[in-house]
Amino acid sequence: MRILGIDPGLCITGFGVIDKSGGNLTYVSSGSVKTSGGELPFRLKLILDNLTEIITLYRPQHVSVEQVFVNINPKSTLLLGQARGAAICAAVMNNLIVAEYTALQIKQAVVGNGHAKKDQVQEMVVRLLNLNGSPGADAADALACAICHANGGLGLGRIATTGYRMKRGRLV
Amino acid sequence: MRILGIDPGLCITGFGVIDKSGGNLTYVSSGSVKTSGGELPFRLKLILDNLTEIITLYRPQHVSVEQVFVNINPKSTLLLGQARGAAICAAVMNNLIVAEYTALQIKQAVVGNGHAKKDQVQEMVVRLLNLNGSPGADAADALACAICHANGGLGLGRIATTGYRMKRGRLV
Repeated sequence: MRILGIDPGLCITGFGVIDKSGGNLTYVSSGSVKTSGGELPFRLKLILDNLTEIITLYRPQHVSVEQVFVNINPKSTLLLGQARGAAICAAVMNNLIVAEYTALQIKQAVVGNGHAKKDQVQEMVVRLLNLNGSPGADAADALACAICHANGGLGLGRIATTGYRMKRGRLV
Repeated sequence: MRILGIDPGLCITGFGVIDKSGGNLTYVSSGSVKTSGGELPFRLKLILDNLTEIITLYRPQHVSVEQVFVNINPKSTLLLGQARGAAICAAVMNNLIVAEYTALQIKQAVVGNGHAKKDQVQEMVVRLLNLNGSPGADAADALACAICHANGGLGLGRIATTGYRMKRGRLV
């Protein structure tokens, strides 16, 4: 089974592709889509087009998307939401199954501690996928999101969009 | 020139299609896409698929999207943002020019008063497009958004995504 993990953002959208075969996880690809500059519709198109290209190239069966940080500033939240909408559109356009995980769920699945720090997540991604080098922060987050889904998450195929809650302006 | 106006929302996305020929505006079609129930990715797909169908059917050259209400609740803002992202994706996927207008700009363009009430906007939409009956609230908002673009807005083809500001939790 091939999983595409996505860490959506308007400026940088991280992606990571892994294969799951039995209990083994294999790294396939990762990187980020950068959209700095330009007007919003243009930037959403960049996210949509680039993720579509990645989906066409790697043909994942499942897509695992991180629940984005809810910024205190409603303008930023709206912009993030739109970027996230574009990322999910790229997946559903291709009739892929979409699962959603909060940062807490991802950290729990990858590090075993929902409150792990960013570099701990990054280190565990490197270890779990036997990487030679460390992927960029956004790619690592996307890979962690894919690993969370591979390791069961809330049950494969189940779309978990509800039930999250807010704590100090973040989704948990 | 044919314009598709969109009033995006996660539950109800209003749409309205009008033709502009010289100074004349003609009503073509309007309605709403309802997505009540179901998980988020499914609902975003409904918005994307339905708007794509409308674009395929009516072949507009321009798309005019209302700047959505910024809810005080960040969860709702995030959901709205995602719905809006899906609506803009439907437009940019089809390589259409996207313009964005705030509610204030739309009311100014349609009623001549940025602080006009909803029923005043609806009444002016009926008058300006010589309609026999009153369209639904969301369809009327979408038609108003299309009229705003037809009447110049911020200049055809110009994408106005910046420069808005917040007032009591609303975009103005």
